[in-house]
Amino acid sequence: MKLQTAKGVRDFLPKEKIAREKVVSTIKEVFELYGFPPLETPILERLDVLASKYAGGAEILKETFKLKDQGDRDLALRYDLTVPLSRVIGMNPQLRMPFKRYAIGRVFRDGPIKLGRYREFWQCDVDIIGVRQMSAEAELLSLTSEVFKNLKLDVVIRVNNRKILNGIIAEAGIEKAKEETVILTLDKLEKFGQDYVVKELIDKGISKKTADELLTFVTTRSIAKLAKLIKNEEGKQGLKELEELFTLLKQFNVKNAIFDTSLARGLSYYTGTVYEVFMNKGEIKSSIAAGGRYDKMIGSFLESKREYPAVGISFGLNTLMDAIKTEYKETVSKVFVIPINTFKQSIKIVKELRENNIKADIDLMERGPSKNLKYANGLGIPFVLFIGEDEIKKKKFKLKDMESGKERTLIISSIIKELS
Amino acid sequence: MKLQTAKGVRDFLPKEKIAREKVVSTIKEVFELYGFPPLETPILERLDVLASKYAGGAEILKETFKLKDQGDRDLALRYDLTVPLSRVIGMNPQLRMPFKRYAIGRVFRDGPIKLGRYREFWQCDVDIIGVRQMSAEAELLSLTSEVFKNLKLDVVIRVNNRKILNGIIAEAGIEKAKEETVILTLDKLEKFGQDYVVKELIDKGISKKTADELLTFVTTRSIAKLAKLIKNEEGKQGLKELEELFTLLKQFNVKNAIFDTSLARGLSYYTGTVYEVFMNKGEIKSSIAAGGRYDKMIGSFLESKREYPAVGISFGLNTLMDAIKTEYKETVSKVFVIPINTFKQSIKIVKELRENNIKADIDLMERGPSKNLKYANGLGIPFVLFIGEDEIKKKKFKLKDMESGKERTLIISSIIKELS
Repeated sequence: MKLQTAKGVRDFLPKEKIAREKVVSTIKEVFELYGFPPLETPILERLDVLASKYAGGAEILKETFKLKDQGDRDLALRYDLTVPLSRVIGMNPQLRMPFKRYAIGRVFRDGPIKLGRYREFWQCDVDIIGVRQMSAEAELLSLTSEVFKNLKLDVVIRVNNRKILNGIIAEAGIEKAKEETVILTLDKLEKFGQDYVVKELIDKGISKKTADELLTFVTTRSIAKLAKLIKNEEGKQGLKELEELFTLLKQFNVKNAIFDTSLARGLSYYTGTVYEVFMNKGEIKSSIAAGGRYDKMIGSFLESKREYPAVGISFGLNTLMDAIKTEYKETVSKVFVIPINTFKQSIKIVKELRENNIKADIDLMERGPSKNLKYANGLGIPFVLFIGEDEIKKKKFKLKDMESGKERTLIISSIIKELS
Repeated sequence: MKLQTAKGVRDFLPKEKIAREKVVSTIKEVFELYGFPPLETPILERLDVLASKYAGGAEILKETFKLKDQGDRDLALRYDLTVPLSRVIGMNPQLRMPFKRYAIGRVFRDGPIKLGRYREFWQCDVDIIGVRQMSAEAELLSLTSEVFKNLKLDVVIRVNNRKILNGIIAEAGIEKAKEETVILTLDKLEKFGQDYVVKELIDKGISKKTADELLTFVTTRSIAKLAKLIKNEEGKQGLKELEELFTLLKQFNVKNAIFDTSLARGLSYYTGTVYEVFMNKGEIKSSIAAGGRYDKMIGSFLESKREYPAVGISFGLNTLMDAIKTEYKETVSKVFVIPINTFKQSIKIVKELRENNIKADIDLMERGPSKNLKYANGLGIPFVLFIGEDEIKKKKFKLKDMESGKERTLIISSIIKELS
């Protein structure tokens, strides 16, 4: 047997896990400030739910981990947090609308392994169900802006609307059947440039003239100018929604959102606003958060076909962690207690520290002071406290600051004060 | 397609999830006070690692969810957090000993569905690797006692040592090959009583006389008395360890631990101390936390066969939640802002509340005041804030306490003070 992890997954040792927890708690804090409560759904889902054509579509189904239970039922591991949310809404008609929730958890995709791509990874999602108005998008993008401010990351939020893209395609005279594939090509503009996009469009059977026309549309980043070019209803509706959203974003004081006419987002379930967040500088070129409006998905699950307008955003924890460079220690402890032949008596002291809310560790192995110092230093514990028999008698203990090397002999109440 | 969850799993809607998060954070707090940092391992593991005979054994393998990746590799969903920890230790020889960690996460077992048993459930584990001394057990049981104190649950910690059980069996003249199966029967004493245990022992080919003798042993709960009955080395060593542990527990001021000679724990990997925590009163009869010493498992994974002494405890979140009856709301919001034809201006106010760390929600749908009041009341949001045009002019807003029904007209700084 080879002692190793499965392909495409990884362990997070304390140092990395502490950093991740810190980021997750920053994100959660903002989610809750905006009034979102948590929701938890299982990792195991019925395959037929995840395979629904209204969900992720055929593309994602190829990457879905499938398995069976002992009753030979077809199951799958969830590949996102949006489809399970849609199932929950469908199964719980008693939920009050609008329904807001956040979810932070693992998702699974059996895809090719590339740098920074894993088969098991974390998403942090926040969604609002039941709101047709652009106020929902504005609230979410304000939250997004706040998350990145608190994470001290300089980002830009690219915003578009699927209705504008559909409108552009209709305006260019492209048949409806090609809409989806053309959108996927246009989405590559930011990443691969104009020549690449034109070539791929021609490969897909679009004439050079039409391809050039499409390029003119999607490189026009002014709502006013586009309004003059797009005459069809869907496109006009998209522009109206986008304008409304930007007006609200101004009220929310969100300054880092821009209109990007080429942005499409891969998933087919989006029906209106779409957005992706990118780092303004640095090496991370892939999006760090993304989402949009998906007004049709939940209803498509239901017999009633009742429509549930929905909008959400998902933060990718892996990419976030790549963008945040802060180093953390591999310990949570503030102090390491070193008994010198006094383990039993030292228990009382470590207990007292903990009762005073000080994260404290103690040598359990009766090792010598130098071994213990090396251990505490290796883990990065900021203080050590020596407890010898003499110290116990005098009720004064030696507290060593591991960074400065400074030692002080203090009574326990002063030590607690110092470490609090 | 039937819109439903997989068999044996469940959703946690906000109300229940908020309660779970509260309990998890209480547990985490104690884990960290005791100096344990978090570790995270994947849910997907290689089947051969989980199927290792040194891990959970054949019994648990029957309940392991198996699947394949696109490269036809055999994978499985982890069924506990201990085997993955052992793998991590084996793969990371650079880790400083003792290695302490906690892990909170889902595990999966494809077992029969009974009341309170799920196929996907949460464990909260804390383990110390590298300490041979009983100080490790004492530290863990002190932590356990603290967890339950903070959760306000009245529990008893039953403690035994596998070496004592082995000693008893040897003393009764039972062959080594039957040790394991006899231990599993003895473990049922607390739950099913003496008659049941004697009958099952006889069914397993133990003579009536020997079965009675075993019963005399395992109903003797005094270390001193047992010391007179058990002459073999292993049993004596077990008693010595147990005595040492109880001495340390006294120093840690742990008062709710008792010696239970019949306690065995199902899993075969335990080598010394074992313990299980039960509610002192109430309907919950199954154990609420359990663990023990497993000195051989990690080494068995390694070519070097280097021995890593290890001891841990696992808290079952489902049983914990069943034991804790506290009701929570389905909202995290402190206040719901109700704009009356003033959505754009109200954004500024909700922003100001959030900037002052007040969890605030706002009507995004421009519904009327009575609909909004009904919504806020249904979710259990404690305050609502009305913002009409007149209020904006006067810079004074009506804050309604939803419980008392009391309304006050206040400037924003007073509202912030009131809600903080």
